[in-house]
Amino acid sequence: MARKVAIVGAGVSGLASIKCCLDEGLDPTCFEKSDDIGGVWRFTEYVEEGRPNLYKSLMSNTCKEMSAFTDFPYPEDFPVFLPHAKLLEYLRMYTKHFDLRKHIQFKTAVISIRKHPDFSATGQWDVITETNGKQTSATFDAVMVCIGYLTDPSLPLSSFPGIDRFNGQYFHSRDYKTPEVFKDKRVLVVGMGNSGVDIAVEAMRTAKKVMISTGRGAWVLSRVFDNGYPWDMVFLTRFLNIVRNSLPGRITTRLIESRASQWFNHANYGIIPKDRSVMREPVINDELPAGIITGKVTVRPSVKEFKETSVVFENTPDAEEVDVVVFATGYKASFPFIDDSVIKVENKHASLFKYIFPPLLEKPTLAVIGFLRPLGAVMPVVEIQARWVTRVFKGSCKLPSIKTMMEEINEKKKNKKNWFGLSFDEVLKTDSIVYVDQIASLIGIKPSIPALFLKDPELAMKIFFGPCTSYQYRLTGPGKWEGARKAIMSQWERTLKPTRTRVVEDSSNFLTYVLKVLAMLAVFVGIFFSFI
Amino acid sequence: MARKVAIVGAGVSGLASIKCCLDEGLDPTCFEKSDDIGGVWRFTEYVEEGRPNLYKSLMSNTCKEMSAFTDFPYPEDFPVFLPHAKLLEYLRMYTKHFDLRKHIQFKTAVISIRKHPDFSATGQWDVITETNGKQTSATFDAVMVCIGYLTDPSLPLSSFPGIDRFNGQYFHSRDYKTPEVFKDKRVLVVGMGNSGVDIAVEAMRTAKKVMISTGRGAWVLSRVFDNGYPWDMVFLTRFLNIVRNSLPGRITTRLIESRASQWFNHANYGIIPKDRSVMREPVINDELPAGIITGKVTVRPSVKEFKETSVVFENTPDAEEVDVVVFATGYKASFPFIDDSVIKVENKHASLFKYIFPPLLEKPTLAVIGFLRPLGAVMPVVEIQARWVTRVFKGSCKLPSIKTMMEEINEKKKNKKNWFGLSFDEVLKTDSIVYVDQIASLIGIKPSIPALFLKDPELAMKIFFGPCTSYQYRLTGPGKWEGARKAIMSQWERTLKPTRTRVVEDSSNFLTYVLKVLAMLAVFVGIFFSFI
Repeated sequence: MARKVAIVGAGVSGLASIKCCLDEGLDPTCFEKSDDIGGVWRFTEYVEEGRPNLYKSLMSNTCKEMSAFTDFPYPEDFPVFLPHAKLLEYLRMYTKHFDLRKHIQFKTAVISIRKHPDFSATGQWDVITETNGKQTSATFDAVMVCIGYLTDPSLPLSSFPGIDRFNGQYFHSRDYKTPEVFKDKRVLVVGMGNSGVDIAVEAMRTAKKVMISTGRGAWVLSRVFDNGYPWDMVFLTRFLNIVRNSLPGRITTRLIESRASQWFNHANYGIIPKDRSVMREPVINDELPAGIITGKVTVRPSVKEFKETSVVFENTPDAEEVDVVVFATGYKASFPFIDDSVIKVENKHASLFKYIFPPLLEKPTLAVIGFLRPLGAVMPVVEIQARWVTRVFKGSCKLPSIKTMMEEINEKKKNKKNWFGLSFDEVLKTDSIVYVDQIASLIGIKPSIPALFLKDPELAMKIFFGPCTSYQYRLTGPGKWEGARKAIMSQWERTLKPTRTRVVEDSSNFLTYVLKVLAMLAVFVGIFFSFI
Repeated sequence: MARKVAIVGAGVSGLASIKCCLDEGLDPTCFEKSDDIGGVWRFTEYVEEGRPNLYKSLMSNTCKEMSAFTDFPYPEDFPVFLPHAKLLEYLRMYTKHFDLRKHIQFKTAVISIRKHPDFSATGQWDVITETNGKQTSATFDAVMVCIGYLTDPSLPLSSFPGIDRFNGQYFHSRDYKTPEVFKDKRVLVVGMGNSGVDIAVEAMRTAKKVMISTGRGAWVLSRVFDNGYPWDMVFLTRFLNIVRNSLPGRITTRLIESRASQWFNHANYGIIPKDRSVMREPVINDELPAGIITGKVTVRPSVKEFKETSVVFENTPDAEEVDVVVFATGYKASFPFIDDSVIKVENKHASLFKYIFPPLLEKPTLAVIGFLRPLGAVMPVVEIQARWVTRVFKGSCKLPSIKTMMEEINEKKKNKKNWFGLSFDEVLKTDSIVYVDQIASLIGIKPSIPALFLKDPELAMKIFFGPCTSYQYRLTGPGKWEGARKAIMSQWERTLKPTRTRVVEDSSNFLTYVLKVLAMLAVFVGIFFSFI
């Protein structure tokens, strides 16, 4: 009989987990608290308790080719970057295509997950769920926790002296829906992550005045990157990744800074990071610099204190009047239904092997999927996690010894300070491509580039120099997909299709041709020197 | 007794004209139809008949240093690019500082301007005005017409077959105020000038769907240019202008194209100009490419025809549903109060010497100010026109013979096809810097760069390699201003001040220094090769 797997949550990670269970012949049951799939990507008009929340204007920060599951490209007419509704539509298509819905129990909350009495022999878990107020208990052979980390807002009011006497309105970014709330108000957004910047630039359309307060600053990149190609398709290539990881960290950091400054000088715009030796996750936003240069958004230092109707910033004498404060201060991670002895979150970090497995369990039958923030798209990362985890559950893959796992975890904790990359909230020196490759190797599906150069050089070129799309993890090994090569070869077509909606005949001539060749050369040289 | 000058309109051109009249000892009377100054820059909540109209979100396309009058820099805390309210505030400050208001008769429309019976001897004009329904006639020694060209919308409905059976809403861009009108509608904007693109990107925040239809396409530049400096401060320098004008036109055109494509490939975004041998006025917009790549705005070819609820585009089989059509089809120019024998507008072009003087008058006592669209800011151009005109009126400057003037006008008409630059609506091969320099030479205020390199090399460097700000036309000759040098030396300070609102101490070290020097070199080399 197939091993029974409980999956908690039917968002991106949960859906990928169901699909991977089915691929490996496991028997998944997914418990979803709400009445529909999509998790964070399902927009509702009002904030719902205990669910992640989207603001109405939210767009994906990664483009569709980079955000696809490995065997399910987006339709070619979908926009390059996706409004949340389109991303949800994709998840619905995925769910339908692989017939996942029948494995989901909706309106069912997971109350507790406890080791079965004979856990050390069987690795089984007792899962208590609640549907319409009625609790049910069942035993599962394994568990995949797919709840994300965007439900429980972190609102550290004690770090903001005077907030209790502040007479204006304030709320966490999680409670933000549309910019009408800012109409003719003086708005302060605290925090300069992606949400904070998104909300600030949206506020400038209705507010009287918008300030964004940041202590540490940020590097900001535009979705519209070199020559208008999506930033992640240019930035996240195997070739550039090798170059970046080969150079001394400091030089790479400076060169990336200089690349970010090509768009706009971050010091002149007041947002330059304070500690430039730490390369944090960049903010993806297309509108911030224009907002700053037109005076609609003003960048300010950290908040020193609040007064009745105003705010005082560090190193700034005068108080500034403010009506509404939005705290874009992130989220707290927790696993309320799992005992601390199994997973404990400390300082926003859980000690998990490869961000997935609690290393000290006698049996590797519990996994956390999607508890990280990759630089780049989430889908390919959580899918590879789920592929590996289901093969571990099945017994086709083995975990290393506890000692080896603990050593790796401790090593990662030490390196926490540098670079953007994978992490829950802080920043580690690993990046997406390296991480996904590691897991792909464990499964035996990592494409061998040298071998490919001999066998299929055209494909190898695309994989090595082109965007690191995830279809390449379906070229070989378990779970091989016949459509993978074609999906890679046609990824640029699908990218250009939705924007080339007015085509002008090119009056080609020799001069144009020569200039094109020169421009292409310049682009290659430019990319090489800009991104190393 | 001082010569009496009638000025029609109290917008940017009118205010500059009053000020220049006063500087030259003339006696100006400005007639303004509405009850306030500011012309096109004065926003009203509702569209007013016979006045230009602004949409609420409008920003200046040129930055404050490039948009200043020659002897009146913007306050340093003003934003780099100006919301319309700030620009109006500047005009109010200018009006107050030079005490212009007392020379303006508000709520007074000019009904007719006719040659005085003894015009051929005196050059005088009879001006009939109307205040509160009562007409008055007065004789003036000279007239300055400062009415702009943004009052009378051009709505060529006959070019759009089927528009009469279209059941949706349609209006000219002049009647647009705020994007609420597009809420949940399918919107089509016809025309891809600055207004069309501004309205389309604003519509995408509220509309269900936005299409922008363009036959000829456009080059789009961002206000946030190289390293985040204002586009016009980088692009409009004497040095680059000389380089651009020295190379064969075709190469310059291609190089400018390649520079525009660095931001985004205009063909991939569907907006590439159809006839690339014509370099039209670029569109300044920061948000269009992000709108296109996120699928919120779709670019379409010319409209073939309208149906009851939809539109059919050229070369496209399917009709697209549409609820609201905005015709951003520009304006008609006319001088209704002046006889055709004095100025006649044909095909949006009036035969005026230097875009100012009707060449066939016996006396040069009538001038049109601001009847052109410079690439770059309007203020310095109209001010230099007014300085020259008032000196012609006074007799300090002379016009050439009718034959010379006619030859130059006809020559310009012939060259109409190439390049962006000065023109009413079509495009001429002259550009702002060359044009302003020509007029400055006629007045005797053009700075001599070679002489300046010997006398004040620091200033000369700034004038030659730096942004071509207008203060340099106050360094010498009639109207010399003592503050001009300082204004030039501090122009970058005033530009950076409003955005450097959070300053981080630079942890300078040798590596940073070396990289900075390299980066600066790269910027110089880059600018040189990109903008030639």
